[in-house]
Amino acid sequence: MQYTADAVNVAIEELSKLPGIGRKSAQRLVFYLLKCEKDEISSLAHSLLDLKEKIQFCQTCFNISDSDICSICSSQSRNHRIICVVEEANDVLAIERTNEYRGTYHVLGGVLSPLDGIGPDNIRVRELMQRLTDDVEEIVLAMNASAEGEATAVYLSKFIKPIGIKISRIARGIPMGGDLEYTDELTLARALAERVNL
Amino acid sequence: MQYTADAVNVAIEELSKLPGIGRKSAQRLVFYLLKCEKDEISSLAHSLLDLKEKIQFCQTCFNISDSDICSICSSQSRNHRIICVVEEANDVLAIERTNEYRGTYHVLGGVLSPLDGIGPDNIRVRELMQRLTDDVEEIVLAMNASAEGEATAVYLSKFIKPIGIKISRIARGIPMGGDLEYTDELTLARALAERVNL
Repeated sequence: MQYTADAVNVAIEELSKLPGIGRKSAQRLVFYLLKCEKDEISSLAHSLLDLKEKIQFCQTCFNISDSDICSICSSQSRNHRIICVVEEANDVLAIERTNEYRGTYHVLGGVLSPLDGIGPDNIRVRELMQRLTDDVEEIVLAMNASAEGEATAVYLSKFIKPIGIKISRIARGIPMGGDLEYTDELTLARALAERVNL
Repeated sequence: MQYTADAVNVAIEELSKLPGIGRKSAQRLVFYLLKCEKDEISSLAHSLLDLKEKIQFCQTCFNISDSDICSICSSQSRNHRIICVVEEANDVLAIERTNEYRGTYHVLGGVLSPLDGIGPDNIRVRELMQRLTDDVEEIVLAMNASAEGEATAVYLSKFIKPIGIKISRIARGIPMGGDLEYTDELTLARALAERVNL
């Protein structure tokens, strides 16, 4: 079913290409936008255009940045001897939000996933290896707790260990505020296996 | 918490203004867009800009249209003696999808809602009254089955009945495929009250 106005059909088509937005949500958004002021739509549209115009990837860590080197990599107050390896740029934000980590990052841009045809050449493994100079003291692996994330962590540790750099992985276990009773078996098993001495 | 890149923060801010899109969804959309080709973002952004540039409201029925008079109002194959009154332009599409209605429409652009300060002057009641010439045979009220929709239907029928035009309201009842057992009491009561003779 098509609307009587072409521009509406096109906008619905474009919006429903976005992840998590189906045709119904796209329709709702378009009818909302039709009621907005021209300025509001214009600032939304231009903010999207600016994403590609202004955003680039940091040439060191591949985090999103508005300059060649991101503010974390160029900061003097960060510890450049520790590199935290994450899957995507939004994981950097998640870790920054803790206010606990003062090292730098390396964004892989994905995880190894042979079934999807994603091998070490498709993510930024080579770029990480090039950063492993004598200055680096520790690599912290902070992949998601998925099968692919674990596989990527194992793969990377096999490469990095022989170089003699300390390598660690963020802990798996019961989330803060979590109840033993309601924790799934996999998480609980992992929490037991990775228990720490007091 | 802010991203290291300003353009990302702005885009997240703009997207999370949309209905049904929170900060988390906006973040996800922005990171999806960052991975898209420039062309894709550009066609999305321009489709949004076109909404205000190209879309206007039909001067007769206030449906969305790309010309002064929409394709339904200007069509010779529609019955211009029947006007179906709906709340919003997307309701027109819902009724068109049935392929059962061959009359014209009138889009109110809202419903009466005294609590929100929306009175008869804020929706297109006067414009509807101006269309009630001798040619019009029937007004079909097709408001949503909400308290405000019902109130608006009652208000309009009070005005239109004295003119001597036939006025009807779409039926309330059990939806097709609906089970009596799982139908809520209000709907079932309405279905009983509005039973039809066989």
